[in-house]
Amino acid sequence: MIQQLIQKIQKTKAPLCVGLDPMLGYIPEHILKASFQEFGETLEGAANAIWHFNKEIVDHTWDLIPCVKPQIAMYEQFGIEGLKVYARTIRYCQDKGLLVIGDAKRGDIGSTSAAYATAHLGKVKVGESWHTAFDTEFLTVNPYLGTDGVKPFVDVCKAEDKGIFVLVKTSNPSSGEFQDRLIDGRPLYEHVADKVVEWGADCMDGEYSNVGAVVGATYPEMSAVLRKQMPHTYFLVPGYGAQGATAGDLRPCFDDNGLGAIVNSSRGIIAAYRQEKYAKFGSEHFGEASRQAVIDMAADINSVL
Amino acid sequence: MIQQLIQKIQKTKAPLCVGLDPMLGYIPEHILKASFQEFGETLEGAANAIWHFNKEIVDHTWDLIPCVKPQIAMYEQFGIEGLKVYARTIRYCQDKGLLVIGDAKRGDIGSTSAAYATAHLGKVKVGESWHTAFDTEFLTVNPYLGTDGVKPFVDVCKAEDKGIFVLVKTSNPSSGEFQDRLIDGRPLYEHVADKVVEWGADCMDGEYSNVGAVVGATYPEMSAVLRKQMPHTYFLVPGYGAQGATAGDLRPCFDDNGLGAIVNSSRGIIAAYRQEKYAKFGSEHFGEASRQAVIDMAADINSVL
Repeated sequence: MIQQLIQKIQKTKAPLCVGLDPMLGYIPEHILKASFQEFGETLEGAANAIWHFNKEIVDHTWDLIPCVKPQIAMYEQFGIEGLKVYARTIRYCQDKGLLVIGDAKRGDIGSTSAAYATAHLGKVKVGESWHTAFDTEFLTVNPYLGTDGVKPFVDVCKAEDKGIFVLVKTSNPSSGEFQDRLIDGRPLYEHVADKVVEWGADCMDGEYSNVGAVVGATYPEMSAVLRKQMPHTYFLVPGYGAQGATAGDLRPCFDDNGLGAIVNSSRGIIAAYRQEKYAKFGSEHFGEASRQAVIDMAADINSVL
Repeated sequence: MIQQLIQKIQKTKAPLCVGLDPMLGYIPEHILKASFQEFGETLEGAANAIWHFNKEIVDHTWDLIPCVKPQIAMYEQFGIEGLKVYARTIRYCQDKGLLVIGDAKRGDIGSTSAAYATAHLGKVKVGESWHTAFDTEFLTVNPYLGTDGVKPFVDVCKAEDKGIFVLVKTSNPSSGEFQDRLIDGRPLYEHVADKVVEWGADCMDGEYSNVGAVVGATYPEMSAVLRKQMPHTYFLVPGYGAQGATAGDLRPCFDDNGLGAIVNSSRGIIAAYRQEKYAKFGSEHFGEASRQAVIDMAADINSVL
């Protein structure tokens, strides 16, 4: 699966993914109004607005990008109606030829992780029939429970040619609280990185493994160390743009061929029309603002590769 | 909220929760058959079977227990249909007077954790209206991202009088891989425990905080240390029964008054009819087997308190 992602990155020349993390506050008034008129100020009304918002952004960006990364929490907060739109968004993006990284950060004891892996990457057996639930190409995974909590995801990656990105060093301000603590002279995240390398070793797809890592762009000196430590691990890189990291901060995440990393931007793309820089598009044309923001972000990243 | 749980534990004399983690393999043939006849071997057919299975177990145990703990992964693997039954199970249990611990182990960067907290414990604003999504009394939370990933859950606990259980030391075989590693001479889980105490300090509800901890019963010597380290933190204790821990292993999780911990059992209760000990009930009467297993488990725990 990671080879499919690499090919799409090479074709689009855009090592980035659009984070489809729709907060209601990002959605232009005309969409909210139309949706509330049809469905009321209900969970269904919110979910329908999110759907139209997502669709417009995907319609204006799909030909420029290799993949999207919907954050499931933003859908889960609207309950079943929100999760229906999560599923619908995934299918719509896949129909457009996009790969989808489900950002769910799941992780539990073995038998439970197996159920999550089934839910998001695999197939579930009902009687003699097989079905899929959310069926994304990639999923983000939390490593706190250790190998037996991650292994079921790796097994599904192997069986179904899917991929995962395991949290190693996250982009948030307090990520260091536990992740940076020294164990035998090395930070915890490097120990997690060792395990990610181990988990990924028999899951190779070309030069890179289907077991990737989440490495925040906000700590570039750490990215540089991790890039060396994990030469066959693809990085999913949050933290660019709204969270503060610049293109220069991204450079250490990439290998010498300009591969090895895919950079996420959520707010910076989907709410671009609210930035002064893109205000000229107006909220009615927010999709065009997102398109321009993708073009600008790709150029910005490519300028350092 | 933790006081409500304590009162229910005192009333039922059963410091336990029933883990509603239905695998299709646990569900008796007559339920599966009826459901597949009505809905086919579909996700809806599976979800409907789970619903009838859960309902039977709840109907046979609700008067004996303070709470249930549905594991959302077991529903998520059946997609939207599965999650509808997760929501329906929660409401059904609450209507019976049970408290519900949503076992979701969510955790992400701040704004995303806020969405998860809304999804599972809080209210979401749509226009001028407020709605709830899954609305459980408690939720399990993963701490790997540090304070800014946990704080949004704590905030919702304070605003809505809800509770969380943060993963400290989990019950699975490889939990030690990261959690037991020494940082300044103390295992990582003790550092997490320090933070849990800190997060819970301004969230007190009587003698105990609404911010609790997940502490696996499978490592009793560690439970004893954590009980001392966290005198005002309620423990949610997995690992009893099918995972190998005995009543004796549970003792260190409790305080001198026999409070301070609630022990989960999933397979041991919901699939009791498959154990030789309860085979006499037969698969047709699996709810009665679960009832007897609850009675036996409560007696077993109380024997060491």
